[in-house]
Amino acid sequence: MAERLVVIGGDAAGMSAASQARRRKRPEDLEIIVFEKGNYVSYSACGEPYYVSGDVDDFDDLKVRTPEQFWKVSIDARLHHEATEIDTVRGEVTVRKLTEGTEEKIGYDHLLYATGAQSLRPPIDGIDLAGVYELRTLDDARTLREVATGGASTKAVVVGGGYIGLEVAEAMHTLGLETTIITMMPTVLERTFDPDMAEKVGHRIEEMGIELITNHKVECLEGRGGRVVGAGCGDQSVRADLVVLALGSRPATGLAAEAGIPLGKSGGVIVDERQRTPIDGVWSAGDCAEARHRLTGSAVNLHLGTVANKTGRVAGINLGGGDITFPGVLGTAITKVHDFEIARTGLTEFEAEDAGIEHVAAEVASSTAAHYWPGSSPMRIKMVAEPGTSRLLGAQIIGGPGAGKRIDTVAAALWSDMTAADLAWADLAYSPPFSGVWDPVNIAARKVAAAAR
Amino acid sequence: MAERLVVIGGDAAGMSAASQARRRKRPEDLEIIVFEKGNYVSYSACGEPYYVSGDVDDFDDLKVRTPEQFWKVSIDARLHHEATEIDTVRGEVTVRKLTEGTEEKIGYDHLLYATGAQSLRPPIDGIDLAGVYELRTLDDARTLREVATGGASTKAVVVGGGYIGLEVAEAMHTLGLETTIITMMPTVLERTFDPDMAEKVGHRIEEMGIELITNHKVECLEGRGGRVVGAGCGDQSVRADLVVLALGSRPATGLAAEAGIPLGKSGGVIVDERQRTPIDGVWSAGDCAEARHRLTGSAVNLHLGTVANKTGRVAGINLGGGDITFPGVLGTAITKVHDFEIARTGLTEFEAEDAGIEHVAAEVASSTAAHYWPGSSPMRIKMVAEPGTSRLLGAQIIGGPGAGKRIDTVAAALWSDMTAADLAWADLAYSPPFSGVWDPVNIAARKVAAAAR
Repeated sequence: MAERLVVIGGDAAGMSAASQARRRKRPEDLEIIVFEKGNYVSYSACGEPYYVSGDVDDFDDLKVRTPEQFWKVSIDARLHHEATEIDTVRGEVTVRKLTEGTEEKIGYDHLLYATGAQSLRPPIDGIDLAGVYELRTLDDARTLREVATGGASTKAVVVGGGYIGLEVAEAMHTLGLETTIITMMPTVLERTFDPDMAEKVGHRIEEMGIELITNHKVECLEGRGGRVVGAGCGDQSVRADLVVLALGSRPATGLAAEAGIPLGKSGGVIVDERQRTPIDGVWSAGDCAEARHRLTGSAVNLHLGTVANKTGRVAGINLGGGDITFPGVLGTAITKVHDFEIARTGLTEFEAEDAGIEHVAAEVASSTAAHYWPGSSPMRIKMVAEPGTSRLLGAQIIGGPGAGKRIDTVAAALWSDMTAADLAWADLAYSPPFSGVWDPVNIAARKVAAAAR
Repeated sequence: MAERLVVIGGDAAGMSAASQARRRKRPEDLEIIVFEKGNYVSYSACGEPYYVSGDVDDFDDLKVRTPEQFWKVSIDARLHHEATEIDTVRGEVTVRKLTEGTEEKIGYDHLLYATGAQSLRPPIDGIDLAGVYELRTLDDARTLREVATGGASTKAVVVGGGYIGLEVAEAMHTLGLETTIITMMPTVLERTFDPDMAEKVGHRIEEMGIELITNHKVECLEGRGGRVVGAGCGDQSVRADLVVLALGSRPATGLAAEAGIPLGKSGGVIVDERQRTPIDGVWSAGDCAEARHRLTGSAVNLHLGTVANKTGRVAGINLGGGDITFPGVLGTAITKVHDFEIARTGLTEFEAEDAGIEHVAAEVASSTAAHYWPGSSPMRIKMVAEPGTSRLLGAQIIGGPGAGKRIDTVAAALWSDMTAADLAWADLAYSPPFSGVWDPVNIAARKVAAAAR
């Protein structure tokens, strides 16, 4: 008789896993059922801000695959099915069919917990007013686009200055709305970039005409007739026709916790490098799970599409009878605001500090191409390394077109424990439309290697 | 008394070396004299095609530094001084002052031979006709731009399909001239890319409206009244108002050979990893010298600005009393034709073959950004690896904006002997405007790792 794999959560991690398991095991050997509480499986959450902005015009482009496509390969992907309870002793999941309100229990031989992350919704007074949005699901994206292009709104306030906050603000600005970002922190990207780099991002955003209000905690939203009209209360209120909350996210681990599936300090589900939780037969992958940071060795909980796809793939290969380990993360990430690119990998100074790793840093102002190339833009790299050895610890890059993806060069170097002294001489590609004769990555590595001596 | 460093050749390698030596030794300890036979020191040869095309408008932009700037830091840079003889026993260079026709002998304690490369000029009948150009010096660039924009020419033929050939053809095409590339090889870039990738470059160039004539050796140029009117003879003649010869280059080692400075099999001056030749007190760097290939261990002779700058820097640091070794080359290079990017690093299949290294290859068709991103372009990566271990050997990339510089990710991986199996999982940056969730570099690495199993 076939064994049964039940997957809870039908996005990147869950569907990658299901696909990989299916490629390795025939339906007569492994039945695969995926329960997704929402309206879509396997969609591009990272593409949502660009659907809102209109850069991506076709809503269907964000759907990587449909349930029908999975059915064709004998993956039973079910929308509007919410898992409400897991019994890890019996090997049973209770599932509520949201369209009908009915519940059923389904047994499993293997369970993949891939519920992803959920938005933080702090107890802000007025958070349920009309005109207050977040951007998590595809439906959120559709709604936000409709509202922002509907003509009734001329002023958007985005609360939160992380990646999503910046991307939503860019979208609003692209659509011609007067746009304000409010953050309680001293600047944007405060959790992922060092203050010196983050401040430069903040200044650049302001130059673009996006208002930035920092060190300001939004504790309430002002309403009139049930609709939001301002972010903040009283004197502190900033006029808003629409408010988007982008206050970060946390792993969706409520169900796991109730079932006694152990969570780590990061808040994510504890997994080994094959994506197995400590509970027999239960696996986890994606935003809800922990992942090992290659540089600190610590378990971290990152909400990134790359990590979700990779850990899902690892889980699926192993569930399909393969044997593969997840090699860990560097926390590499990239985004942009209009033509300004922002990227990071490895450890920032504050992350190295938190991990108790000695570090030095250096910053280089350079350009994306030869200084005389007409399309050349300023760019900056900050690089972090270990004193003495000059072992690379991380990098942050900001700048014009062509700046951001240079982070991958550093990521590849970090992946193999390269020193900054080595990277300084690495044979990187040069031609005037692409870089100076010493690529900015070489120069930053040389500078931080000197600081490490 | 001060020692004296004489540098022959005042471009990238020579001036990098002079600058580094000067930073480490005071004029009272080390006198530095640079002899440059041409009209400029320290210029960007790689920028020349973009001055011709008009992308770079200001001629002065191509001059990285002027002699006056070197004088200020006590580097005696002399233009129009051609070294005609080296006496390595006496430690003496004979120098001809080209403007006056006089010669003098100058003693040295240390000599840096940095003469660069010279264009290949095969015995083509008609090669000295008016209207036949090459592109090596800044003056060549100025002349070519004047001619191509002068209005008298409507049809350009570029003989040779290497990097310079492509870049000159792009320039002519940008200026509105009907442009033909003629190569004796089956396609363009035949010496630096595998045929399968090179052919795709050829097709793309033709789609752009640049004519490509392959397998055709230009053995003569047709003239009328002393001016070129065709490339080729008789029936084989291709009409041309101007012809640019881009037939490759060889190290300018004539003077070294006469002086008994040993040359290697590659044709370049033999140097150790500190840039010393086997002759006491004589150093060499740049296009005229050999460099160690990191993957084959062989000495190669590459004509690349990156290598010239790096080896010059190494020579200069050592001449200045430092102690540094040149870590070698991967042959990383990048160019473009209009918006089509072309890059390589490490070994092609044929280079691995020539080096007697077992190899497998895989090719991936992907896109520069998420497939649904409006600015996404097709790109291809071919990756080469060692069977069994999957140790990376090289990569070739072609595609739209954003494709080419991804070669640096592979170069960094090659630099630290990474395997393709490792690179497949490397934590590279993802966001829809920049890549798919698995970067094409990850995907190509995965595919070649599978082929290597």
